[in-house]
Formats: sequence, structure tokens, C-alpha cells
Amino acid sequence: MKSYAVGIDLGGTNIKAGLVDSIGKIVLKKSIETCAEQGYKRVIERMAGLVLELVRTMGEEVKGVGIGTPGLVDAERGVVIELPNLKGWTNVPVCGEIRKLTGYRCFLGNDANNMAFGESTVGAAKGKRNIVCITLGTGVGGGIIIDGKVYQGSTGVAGEVGHTIIDMNGPECNCGGRGCLERYVGNKYISEYAVKVVKKFRGKSKIVDAAGGDVNRITPEAVYRAAKAGDMTAKKILRDIGRLIGIGLVSVVNILNPEMVVIGGGVANAGELLFRGVRDGLMERGMKGIVKSVRVVKAKLGNDAGIIGSAMLAMRG
Amino acid sequence: MKSYAVGIDLGGTNIKAGLVDSIGKIVLKKSIETCAEQGYKRVIERMAGLVLELVRTMGEEVKGVGIGTPGLVDAERGVVIELPNLKGWTNVPVCGEIRKLTGYRCFLGNDANNMAFGESTVGAAKGKRNIVCITLGTGVGGGIIIDGKVYQGSTGVAGEVGHTIIDMNGPECNCGGRGCLERYVGNKYISEYAVKVVKKFRGKSKIVDAAGGDVNRITPEAVYRAAKAGDMTAKKILRDIGRLIGIGLVSVVNILNPEMVVIGGGVANAGELLFRGVRDGLMERGMKGIVKSVRVVKAKLGNDAGIIGSAMLAMRG
Repeated sequence: MKSYAVGIDLGGTNIKAGLVDSIGKIVLKKSIETCAEQGYKRVIERMAGLVLELVRTMGEEVKGVGIGTPGLVDAERGVVIELPNLKGWTNVPVCGEIRKLTGYRCFLGNDANNMAFGESTVGAAKGKRNIVCITLGTGVGGGIIIDGKVYQGSTGVAGEVGHTIIDMNGPECNCGGRGCLERYVGNKYISEYAVKVVKKFRGKSKIVDAAGGDVNRITPEAVYRAAKAGDMTAKKILRDIGRLIGIGLVSVVNILNPEMVVIGGGVANAGELLFRGVRDGLMERGMKGIVKSVRVVKAKLGNDAGIIGSAMLAMRG
Repeated sequence: MKSYAVGIDLGGTNIKAGLVDSIGKIVLKKSIETCAEQGYKRVIERMAGLVLELVRTMGEEVKGVGIGTPGLVDAERGVVIELPNLKGWTNVPVCGEIRKLTGYRCFLGNDANNMAFGESTVGAAKGKRNIVCITLGTGVGGGIIIDGKVYQGSTGVAGEVGHTIIDMNGPECNCGGRGCLERYVGNKYISEYAVKVVKKFRGKSKIVDAAGGDVNRITPEAVYRAAKAGDMTAKKILRDIGRLIGIGLVSVVNILNPEMVVIGGGVANAGELLFRGVRDGLMERGMKGIVKSVRVVKAKLGNDAGIIGSAMLAMRG
């Protein structure tokens, strides 16, 4: 008999939810507006409504509901501590409310952690016990799986792989530190680096075409589209960025000796050129006895990683 | 009724062993030469003999034997994979042999991990679930305790906190990487830094007196003796070194969100000046929401940490 769980990706704009089976396949998906301005009670009611709707539509019972959201959560108690994108969400007992409204057990986690859990259960690191996940985007997020479970840390905020220092004398980071990995490979900084490199070569690069002809509007996506079209400058940029990611991963890998590093988020789509850079940086700078055994792979669950990972929390919980 | 275990600190020169009670007190201690040149079988026999002697002398039964040693071990199977200081120790099933020769259950661990376990069970971090230990010496070692247990990693070599990168453009490190924490705060590098600072101030410092009058023979100990005698240059050096340790800890703390960081090894004796630097570096550069909850404390078990930690492995195993 098949079993199912509902996974919810709670964002500032949309609530995305899916009915997911035990091997991580989404069999039914729906997205509604968050309507955050109506307050957290209403948002929770909307989530509960979505859960019941999915269950009713499918006509299948579910093992529970998993919710993932960017921000600070107390996973153990199922309470949102604070969400950067949703005002007024301070110490909100989401899981208790969802349980009351739907009758289902509810599990809560930080979105990066849930994604890592998804990758470790039904994704690129399926069956691996100790892995590190890193998500490349505006910010650089992370999730740590230890012994098959999400590692939350002592106050629930572990896994900030993007704020590994790579240069203590480097530029200031949003977090208040200096020279963190995110400060080099967050989307904005990849763009800045690409603009600099392209300008150095007097703007002659397919990257500029891919950016609509304006060198100042280069995005990471423009870089990897140009790289795929064979542009040498774009290839160099991807290798450089990959190498920085690899160097950033050295500290995490030397400390945690994971079986696998899973890289997700938009920039991971840049493909093998980026990944080769990552592996080079890691092998060149990491402890030989540790880095030789770690595999670096691309995340598998893509845009639905949040829904699937959250559902897996409920499935395995 | 009291219970006891034997803890062994296996080094290249000496085998140190102690009969340890359940609160981590050594009630009987003995050290013998390793006689490494006679081969591993003989060394194991010497360890077994020492265990039986301690038990006989005390007239108390023990719960088991714990062994700690620098190098690569397979803790789960009780097998030494490779020891840097003992030739010919490749894939040696130490625990199996000790059990045959003594009749006691045997537990094996890397020395830095065992020390961390000791600190987390009966030392400075007693009762804490998630901690990071760092040992300052010739090298900078580390041990990670997660959920009350030693975190071994996927191939048993986790915890290399000394090889956290703090400056990717920094000087080459023994490990083959660049700008690792150890490259700045290992004993030799503290000495080099102190020599440089003292020479800049034209050699006028109590540090030189503490080093026997020779500026080129400054040791970390000379620095903290001078600092305790009120020397300003020495105080500055300790603060600077402490701050670098703090910056090195940022990545570990941002990733692991531990309750406590325990600092041991010779240089930890430098005291509050060093620790203030560590806390400053950590608070200045770490993520506010994470570093605010972490305590940084001095290791408590001192020179016997290896014996006590190893014994605790057997006591709790």
C-alpha cells in the first residue's frame, strides 16, 4: 500500500503545497497566495485548507503534514520563532494549529534543512547518512544531515554554510562578518565578478549578448548560458566561482567529513564547468585524507525540493 | 557502588594509563615506555599488562578499557588505521587483541575526539549535548560532540577544526591547504608572530627575558608568562592570537551552532587575555543569532584529558 504526506513550502508571497508519495514523487500540487497581510492566523487557516483540499481531491489518507519556511524555527516544538519575509510571525505554534485544524500530525523545519532532508531521503544523496547541502541563490543557504537526520544545532540555527569564512580580510558580508562564502558566490556577487571580468576584456563576450546587450545587467544565468554557447570568458568565470565554492566547502568538509556534498539552487544549473571548479578547490585546499572520499553532486529535487523535503519530514517522522 | 574504567593514552614515547571513576577522577595512574621499536604486538601486550596491573593493584573490577591515540582510527571496529608516530601500525585490531589479553571490552578513539568526549562527560562541558573542542599545541586538533556522542564523520576523520580556512590567500599549511587556522595559532606560528612583534618594538619586552634573553627563542609560554607579569606587548600578542582563534571558530560555530566551545592544550593556559580575544573574534565575525548563545570556556581535564576521556568511552560504552 502506498503512503502519502503533504509538504508545504511557506513563502512570503505564495504557499506551495504538494501531496507526495513515499519515494518523493509529487502526485498533486497546488499553489495559493500567502495573504501575509491578513496575519498569521489567516495564513495558517489557508495552509490547513490547502492540506484538506489536496487530501480530498486525491481521496488518499496522509501520514502527516510537513512545513518548510525560510527563517528561524523551533523544529522540535513545531514553533516559528521568526520569519524574515512574514511580519508578525513571532513564536507562532504553527504545528499545533495545523494539527487542530486538519487532524494531521505536523512537522516544521527551516527550508534549507528540509531541502537537505529531501535530498538525503529521496534525492541526490538517497541513503547517505552524513551529508552537507548548499543552496546557491541570493543568499547561500545550507543544511546538514547527520546520521540520517537534520542537524538542528543547539538553538536550531545550524547549517549556515554560506557564512563560512574564506577570507578574514575580505569584504563585509550582510551577516556582519567579513569574507564569508556568500559574499563571493551569492547571485549578486557572481554578477559583480562577471561584470568586472567582462569589462577587463573590453566587453567582448557572449555574456553581454545573453544579458540583453548591457554589460551592467549580467546575471549568473547570462554567464552560464554564454558558457554553454562556448564562451571562454563565461567558462573562466564559472570555474573561478566554482573554485571559490570549493574553498568555502573545505572548512565544512574538514570538520564534518561528510560522504557527500549536494549543491542546489539556480547557479547549480551552470553544470559541469562549475562543479569541476568546486571539486578542484576542494581537492586543492582540503585535507587529502578527508576530501578524497567526498562526492560533490548536483541536487536532484529542483524547484520542488522544499515541498518534497517537507513532506519527507512528515513521512519519516 | 562505584564503577571504574581504564583509560589509556597511547603515544609514540609513552603509554599512560589510569584507573578512572565514574565522575572522571583518576584514582591510580601509571606510565611506561611504549617500546614502539619492538612492534605493535609487543606494544599491545604492554598495554594489556598495564591494564591488568592497575586492576590488580586497586582490587576493583572495571567496566572496560578505552584507548586514545593520535592518528587515524576506526572507532566503530576498534582498529587502528594508521598512526603518524608509531611505525608499522596499519590496520591493527587493537581492541580485539586487548579484549583477548584482558577479558575486558575495549573502545578506541582518536585522542582529540576522546579528549572532547571527556570534556563533554566529566569536564568543562559536562552535560552539554553539542560541543566543539579545540586543542592548541604544535598542531591544532579538534573534536566534535553531537547529541552527546563523538561525531566521527563518514570515514572516521571528522573534527579537523585546525584546518578551517581563515584566509584563502594566506600562507601554505602543512596539510597542503592555505591559510588554515593552525597555520596562525599552532605553537610555532605563535612564536614566529611574537618574534616579529617584539622585533618591531626593538626587542624591548619582558617576553625576551622570559625566553632566556634571546628574542629568537620566544615560545608561546614565554609570551604568557610575560603577559602575566604585565607586559603590554605580550598582552597584545595574546589578544591578537585569541582573535584569530575566534575568527577560525566562526565557520565551525556558524555551521554547528554548538552550546559551547572548549579550548584546551598548552596555549589555553594563557588565560583570560587569550579567551577575551577569542570571544571578541567570534562575536565580531560570527552570525549574531548563533554566536550570542555559545559559551567559550577553558578545558578542565588538563594533561590527563586523554586518559580520562578514553576511560569515559569505556564507562559509557
